[in-house]
Amino acid sequence: MKLVLAVVQDKDSQRLSSALVENNFRATKLASTGGFLKAGNTTFIIGTEDEKVDEVLEIIKDNCQHREQLVAPVSPMGGNADSYVPYPVEVEVGGATVFVVPVEQFLQF
Amino acid sequence: MKLVLAVVQDKDSQRLSSALVENNFRATKLASTGGFLKAGNTTFIIGTEDEKVDEVLEIIKDNCQHREQLVAPVSPMGGNADSYVPYPVEVEVGGATVFVVPVEQFLQF
Amino acid sequence: MKLVLAVVQDKDSQRLSSALVENNFRATKLASTGGFLKAGNTTFIIGTEDEKVDEVLEIIKDNCQHREQLVAPVSPMGGNADSYVPYPVEVEVGGATVFVVPVEQFLQF
Ligand code: NI
Ligand code: NI
Ligand code: NI
Repeated sequence: MKLVLAVVQDKDSQRLSSALVENNFRATKLASTGGFLKAGNTTFIIGTEDEKVDEVLEIIKDNCQHREQLVAPVSPMGGNADSYVPYPVEVEVGGATVFVVPVEQFLQF
Repeated sequence: MKLVLAVVQDKDSQRLSSALVENNFRATKLASTGGFLKAGNTTFIIGTEDEKVDEVLEIIKDNCQHREQLVAPVSPMGGNADSYVPYPVEVEVGGATVFVVPVEQFLQF
Repeated sequence: MKLVLAVVQDKDSQRLSSALVENNFRATKLASTGGFLKAGNTTFIIGTEDEKVDEVLEIIKDNCQHREQLVAPVSPMGGNADSYVPYPVEVEVGGATVFVVPVEQFLQF
């Protein structure tokens, strides 16, 4: 038994939840902030048998991987038209920080 | 030293807190959601010496065990009288998912 | 790789965050309550290489150590002047409860 602790951006949190459920993994979510990623992230606690750890990591990677995203420019409200960029801009989103921790006992009551 | 991580229903959270305090265990509580249990649960982090892990598990079991509960029917407001059940209904409540994790160092400052 | 779990008072939380960032450690913060410390605390999850655990512990100790603090008396509003203490009072603040947990795998996506 292992405990997989994954800190992911809120943006990817719902998608990861759904993917875990679809694959019969059970996760608990904790609201968390700062540090590993930009503010506003979710810490997943996922319990799994040793032989399924790789499957969990694969699901996290598929749903939360660091990536560049094109963001359509928002036309400026009022002033500041000087800084207006009239074409899509690439921003970095996603990413996950993952720890696999040993579990000595696992129980359900 | 061990870390006991217990995910329990909010319903049982206050009772478990009190029982742990009465037995001189110290716990930190994190609000958590979904996954192991229906939404609205609490994750307890309990630090304890190795020889007291069983006592902690016993306390969690006694206060959070999965059980059936009779719920008195609520008389329907307005319409929907068709689905009104005039006798108590059995619902499932409680349950705990527990991980015991090894601790290499424990410090208090 | 180790996971350092530190429960600290909210009072010290922001200072610890800044000190960790300054020293290039990355932490995730979870709002937590009760148990180890008076209500209103923050649980830090800090991932670090084995050889830097002592540095992390040092930073936690420096920023969260239990200490006595002099609090200037607040002059009583309305009644209750009987219990008014016209000199600074010493109160206990700070303190941290810290667990170091082994990590079997550490990944970033
Ligand atoms: Ni990039
Ligand atoms: Ni049942
Ligand atoms: Ni003291």
